[in-house]
Amino acid sequence: MTPDAETRGRFQPSEPQRRVPPAARDKLLFTPGPLTTSFSVKQAMLHDAGSWHHEFNEKVNWVRDRILRVAGLARETGWEAILLQGSGTFGVEAVLATCVPPKGTVAVLANGAYGERIVLMLQHLNIPHRVLRTAENTPNESEPLDQALAADPSITHVALVHCETTTGLLNPITEIGRVVKRHGRSYIVDAMSSFGAIPIDFAAAGIDFLVSSPNKCLEGVPGFSFVICRRAALLACDGYARSLSLNLLDQLKGFEKNGQFRYTPPTHAILAFEQALHEFEQEGGVAGRGTRYQQNHDTLLHGMARLGFRPYLDPAVQSCVISAFHYPDTERFDFDVFYRRLSDKGFLIYPGKISQARTFRIGCIGRIFPSDITALLAAIGSVLNEMGIKVI
Amino acid sequence: MTPDAETRGRFQPSEPQRRVPPAARDKLLFTPGPLTTSFSVKQAMLHDAGSWHHEFNEKVNWVRDRILRVAGLARETGWEAILLQGSGTFGVEAVLATCVPPKGTVAVLANGAYGERIVLMLQHLNIPHRVLRTAENTPNESEPLDQALAADPSITHVALVHCETTTGLLNPITEIGRVVKRHGRSYIVDAMSSFGAIPIDFAAAGIDFLVSSPNKCLEGVPGFSFVICRRAALLACDGYARSLSLNLLDQLKGFEKNGQFRYTPPTHAILAFEQALHEFEQEGGVAGRGTRYQQNHDTLLHGMARLGFRPYLDPAVQSCVISAFHYPDTERFDFDVFYRRLSDKGFLIYPGKISQARTFRIGCIGRIFPSDITALLAAIGSVLNEMGIKVI
Repeated sequence: MTPDAETRGRFQPSEPQRRVPPAARDKLLFTPGPLTTSFSVKQAMLHDAGSWHHEFNEKVNWVRDRILRVAGLARETGWEAILLQGSGTFGVEAVLATCVPPKGTVAVLANGAYGERIVLMLQHLNIPHRVLRTAENTPNESEPLDQALAADPSITHVALVHCETTTGLLNPITEIGRVVKRHGRSYIVDAMSSFGAIPIDFAAAGIDFLVSSPNKCLEGVPGFSFVICRRAALLACDGYARSLSLNLLDQLKGFEKNGQFRYTPPTHAILAFEQALHEFEQEGGVAGRGTRYQQNHDTLLHGMARLGFRPYLDPAVQSCVISAFHYPDTERFDFDVFYRRLSDKGFLIYPGKISQARTFRIGCIGRIFPSDITALLAAIGSVLNEMGIKVI
Repeated sequence: MTPDAETRGRFQPSEPQRRVPPAARDKLLFTPGPLTTSFSVKQAMLHDAGSWHHEFNEKVNWVRDRILRVAGLARETGWEAILLQGSGTFGVEAVLATCVPPKGTVAVLANGAYGERIVLMLQHLNIPHRVLRTAENTPNESEPLDQALAADPSITHVALVHCETTTGLLNPITEIGRVVKRHGRSYIVDAMSSFGAIPIDFAAAGIDFLVSSPNKCLEGVPGFSFVICRRAALLACDGYARSLSLNLLDQLKGFEKNGQFRYTPPTHAILAFEQALHEFEQEGGVAGRGTRYQQNHDTLLHGMARLGFRPYLDPAVQSCVISAFHYPDTERFDFDVFYRRLSDKGFLIYPGKISQARTFRIGCIGRIFPSDITALLAAIGSVLNEMGIKVI
């Protein structure tokens, strides 16, 4: 058992001899976030901080610097990390609402629900846009984008999703980014579920704005998102903002004026994130965390194959973050029953979101270790037996 | 000492004999929120909840019902309580972004920073508006509004702030509401810092949309806001939303579709709020909480007068939520020094926000008792002595 797992203070179904009664433990979350966090991250929330007080503002400043360090960037080289209240979706919409000029057009590369969500944002914000779609099992393609950018000079921005959480598919952000930059357009990356575990080369990809969340691979709790951006790119957007709450430039100006959020920050979630960033560093940063998630993923894929489940994606485009599996090909499989029985055993998996296939998903991120995956696999085997589904 | 205070797990400056070292205790927050919460509210955050799981969604549903009960309303009589990620500002902007039709105009009654913030939102959203201002020490007036509504049929909505946290001034929402309803317009009330402690008669005031926050008088932690609205009024707004994240109608539809937030909820803040609502009920609801805050306020005003401080507002328009005090009339007073010395003693007060007078503020809300106010007053007396300012 990993030493870290000792301190999590939650359901350990593989060790029934533990003295804590099961009802007192949290179910393990095999979800794309909110996810299982360490007990020490949650304990950091046992304090009330004054949002105006310098001690809290110093923490906010530290967190902003540390996010840049995770990205391999720094303020000194022209980068900013801006925290914004709300979920990750609020962060993505803030970039669009703040940074696209009145006559701008956004090209969206979409192959899942999160790419389509960007399209929905642009519809609400009344921003002209073009959508370049591929199938949900097919990465974004650079060739059609190249043609679109050559043909349509009105396109000012290109937006896409790095890890499409719908499937776990990893899009080729560097290859796409080279096309975007060759045409001199701005590049927006939604890296919600990848940042912190999958290396991202900002320079090579030419990223101008990247959005992520504390409650994914960085293993904090939900309550805000953050945007990493080129300072000059954001400062050039003065006057464009279509929303006060989502005005990312004003949010930066607020931090620079007095170190504070413009509006009430989720103080407890930020204290938790400070702790989560320390634990991230202790685990060896992006490399260390990515290695554990990859071990989780490998254990999962191997075990699910033995149980007869087929993964939805080709392994070549599959990330370690989350995986979608086809329903077993039998009438006896009922996802709601499957889900509930796993929940009764202390494991929460995730429903599917793919429009063209019946799938469910299992996430490998959060304070989850290969031993937890093994326990989940054992529980899945038991549930299949209970449901009368033959394990191959 | 109030029994509740025993369990708060934070700085108790009036009892130096306590064994917990001062450094391990949190400073008391005399702020308008985020504020000092009970230890049990914070402990509720020591769990990770699955945002898709029915157990969490049942809690969300319970919270939505309970907010209506605090308001003296119910779903059965056509009301909804909708939770929205982000701070209270996000909730106010969501109402404006979702509910004002394309050809609508909003009249704003403003007498402080939060009224002016509504104006800023309307500017960003590109919604036509008129502003009726009174001085920061003067309540909103119904007469000019009556004239404006009679003269300008394009005004569809009237918006104001119940307790203007800039000063602590309480605006006459029922009197104004009668004028709004006589003219058949929609009525939006920002009750951020009043809801839960100051009684609000929704029917008498004719309120259509009211926005508040868990981290004010209900003593939860920050991370979301909530909107109480007439269901029919919100359903009539289909197609107006100017933002996806702030689309309040879609947020309601999401809850009704599957019990879930559309986008990642601040799960821990919601678990804390569930506990906070239980403690609110235990204290006797709006009457009980309002009584304690009034005792805090009376203790504060009396003690500050004895120390020679002049309140900014006339007592007739002053709420119990927060009070602004003029700086002492001496060169020896330096607010930064005053603030820091009080902070060193474990008390965080709040700076002023009034544009036309030099003031600071002291909040009376949160898990704060009259004994805490007495301790704060003693500390203020000591700091004045240290600064060489004569106490009258």
